[in-house]
Amino acid sequence: MIFLTRRATFSASHYYWNDTWPAEKNQQVFGRCANRNGHGHNYTLEVTVAGEPDAVTGFVVDLKWLKDVIDREVMAAYDHRHLNLEVPEFASINPTTENIAIAAWRRLQPAVTAAGGARLSRVRVYETPDIFAEYRGEA
Amino acid sequence: MIFLTRRATFSASHYYWNDTWPAEKNQQVFGRCANRNGHGHNYTLEVTVAGEPDAVTGFVVDLKWLKDVIDREVMAAYDHRHLNLEVPEFASINPTTENIAIAAWRRLQPAVTAAGGARLSRVRVYETPDIFAEYRGEA
Amino acid sequence: MIFLTRRATFSASHYYWNDTWPAEKNQQVFGRCANRNGHGHNYTLEVTVAGEPDAVTGFVVDLKWLKDVIDREVMAAYDHRHLNLEVPEFASINPTTENIAIAAWRRLQPAVTAAGGARLSRVRVYETPDIFAEYRGEA
Amino acid sequence: MIFLTRRATFSASHYYWNDTWPAEKNQQVFGRCANRNGHGHNYTLEVTVAGEPDAVTGFVVDLKWLKDVIDREVMAAYDHRHLNLEVPEFASINPTTENIAIAAWRRLQPAVTAAGGARLSRVRVYETPDIFAEYRGEA
Amino acid sequence: MIFLTRRATFSASHYYWNDTWPAEKNQQVFGRCANRNGHGHNYTLEVTVAGEPDAVTGFVVDLKWLKDVIDREVMAAYDHRHLNLEVPEFASINPTTENIAIAAWRRLQPAVTAAGGARLSRVRVYETPDIFAEYRGEA
Amino acid sequence: MIFLTRRATFSASHYYWNDTWPAEKNQQVFGRCANRNGHGHNYTLEVTVAGEPDAVTGFVVDLKWLKDVIDREVMAAYDHRHLNLEVPEFASINPTTENIAIAAWRRLQPAVTAAGGARLSRVRVYETPDIFAEYRGEA
Repeated sequence: MIFLTRRATFSASHYYWNDTWPAEKNQQVFGRCANRNGHGHNYTLEVTVAGEPDAVTGFVVDLKWLKDVIDREVMAAYDHRHLNLEVPEFASINPTTENIAIAAWRRLQPAVTAAGGARLSRVRVYETPDIFAEYRGEA
Repeated sequence: MIFLTRRATFSASHYYWNDTWPAEKNQQVFGRCANRNGHGHNYTLEVTVAGEPDAVTGFVVDLKWLKDVIDREVMAAYDHRHLNLEVPEFASINPTTENIAIAAWRRLQPAVTAAGGARLSRVRVYETPDIFAEYRGEA
Repeated sequence: MIFLTRRATFSASHYYWNDTWPAEKNQQVFGRCANRNGHGHNYTLEVTVAGEPDAVTGFVVDLKWLKDVIDREVMAAYDHRHLNLEVPEFASINPTTENIAIAAWRRLQPAVTAAGGARLSRVRVYETPDIFAEYRGEA
Repeated sequence: MIFLTRRATFSASHYYWNDTWPAEKNQQVFGRCANRNGHGHNYTLEVTVAGEPDAVTGFVVDLKWLKDVIDREVMAAYDHRHLNLEVPEFASINPTTENIAIAAWRRLQPAVTAAGGARLSRVRVYETPDIFAEYRGEA
Repeated sequence: MIFLTRRATFSASHYYWNDTWPAEKNQQVFGRCANRNGHGHNYTLEVTVAGEPDAVTGFVVDLKWLKDVIDREVMAAYDHRHLNLEVPEFASINPTTENIAIAAWRRLQPAVTAAGGARLSRVRVYETPDIFAEYRGEA
Repeated sequence: MIFLTRRATFSASHYYWNDTWPAEKNQQVFGRCANRNGHGHNYTLEVTVAGEPDAVTGFVVDLKWLKDVIDREVMAAYDHRHLNLEVPEFASINPTTENIAIAAWRRLQPAVTAAGGARLSRVRVYETPDIFAEYRGEA
């Protein structure tokens, strides 16, 4: 079994806010991230698939295909976007690094599974070089 | 003469737009950066001062002092902010990497000059690891 | 389950030495690291906690809280210190990257456990960009 | 159990080609990598061993020894070489990142196993900062 | 005056050889780089232009345009190529980092000059993260 | 004219102290850097030489020769050393990043000058990725 990873980056805006809380509590819990004008990051997404290298090509998956999947399923929706305002899965939950990792997994898994051969193994999202979240799927 | 540099990072949102143009021209010139919801970056700011090391301390400037100046003059205004909406100098000009470098220089220079001893030599701003702008003041 | 990581850096001195060995054997086994004046590194510490994102905040843990825990439990003791001379757990064992990873885990685990919700999953210590050790706890 | 990693780099050429296919199919499947003149990369190899730190030295393994093993078993064969033309294991299979990770594991494992104490746990190969493959052995 | 830089990467093979020398002298002067099968690198190219930001756009040059120029003038010729065998300017001179910097400058300057507004200021080429050459044009 | 740079790293300890001041003033001015046990860094040294590429080799200088000069003149004296206690030039001045840049220049310049062909152009020293000092010699 080989774990093959491709990294991609996207630039997006976000904020953290809970509508059921008064503004003061949002400020207290989310600090500067509660600024409703939004702030942004250069996110790095690492997508890992697991499988056996093909005997002829030596590929677990074709990395150009994997790049296309990442572009179509994640980059097209997240890059140069305001995550809270333009990405459906963050309409009602905060686009934290944790939740972005889960959401990117859910966007990628159907395409990886449909292709057969390799399975999605891990999605890691860096909000900054010093903060990252990793999701490996349910159980 | 020694050139001493301190690096700092801030996360901010921005967009590019020219009010005197129709939306189509904004889209055409600025592409995905014309999204009025904004998108964001982890910017890296490099501030370089030039001077002679002090004979007793060995410092061109005290790096803790330089960090405080950067925090007070730039970070407090830019970090976790929407540059177009919350930073005065970008109310009417686009917060391009080029313009951010000039604006940061103008914010930093009075404090560095007032302290004496060293002069502001260079301000470099990275929008991503692959794009950066550098300003060295008026000729 | 999400694995959320925060990175921090500290600068410290250390040397490797075994008092029960003659100087020659220390030199032979530890090479330049046996220099009793010490040498130093910019260490990078990566702390990973595992848990479920909170349904309201989207946080596995509050990253500001995690930073405070790291600062209080590890940075306050290790940063700008001579590990052999000033950190109790290295009075009688060498502060190798391996032992620093275990020691940082032991410093962090009580605070993470006491907070509930997430568990400490992994501690990784980089001595240089090319050498790192990782500890995931007992069994 | 501690996982101790040492990183090394090598510069090598390679191409992807399948002799049983016509040139057109090689072009179609392998794209620019099918250029028989070869192209190259600065590869980064990360070798992880797992074990308990020695009670006296604090070492899982001596990192100088590990460097010597990597140099002798991998660097001497791969660095400044054309992988397809000069490395036996790639005479008939493509030197993809996946296959390089497996081949490096097979080169390293006997020496690590023979030394006793620690076992080879993981080999990771970066072809670029954005593409890497990881192998953890059979089963 | 603002100095605006865009970075790009390419993967290529090369070797060093002087046909007028016997093989032994090539080995002695160029060491492992004299391997005629070639070896390779992930090169990083940094292209800096100098000019004034446009009053309306805030751009010294449009970075998408600059990327297109770099792709057309340099990447198309160098990426996934064997520099000695496939790039005309290296048919008779060694593709050292120094010579690649000069050659990339000569490829880029006509297009930057023709566009007007900004001038080519600096070309830097990294062969590895630890070795780079910079060219600023004829005095 | 080409500017050719080679990077090297060393790990060393240091502290900041002025014997003519009372301990309190040392604490006040130098903060945690006044800890007499020392603390340490992974320093990065960038050495830039300027010259014309040789018409036959394509080299401004032979990078293996430059590495040997750096190893002999700087690394042998600084790496795995306590700069205050073991390096003569820091016996009476603080080993600040600024002073290390000047001292490394003075160590390197005679050997570069003696070799002829290229001149020493710039020495840059990174104490951390976020703090660096650059020296270009006496005006």
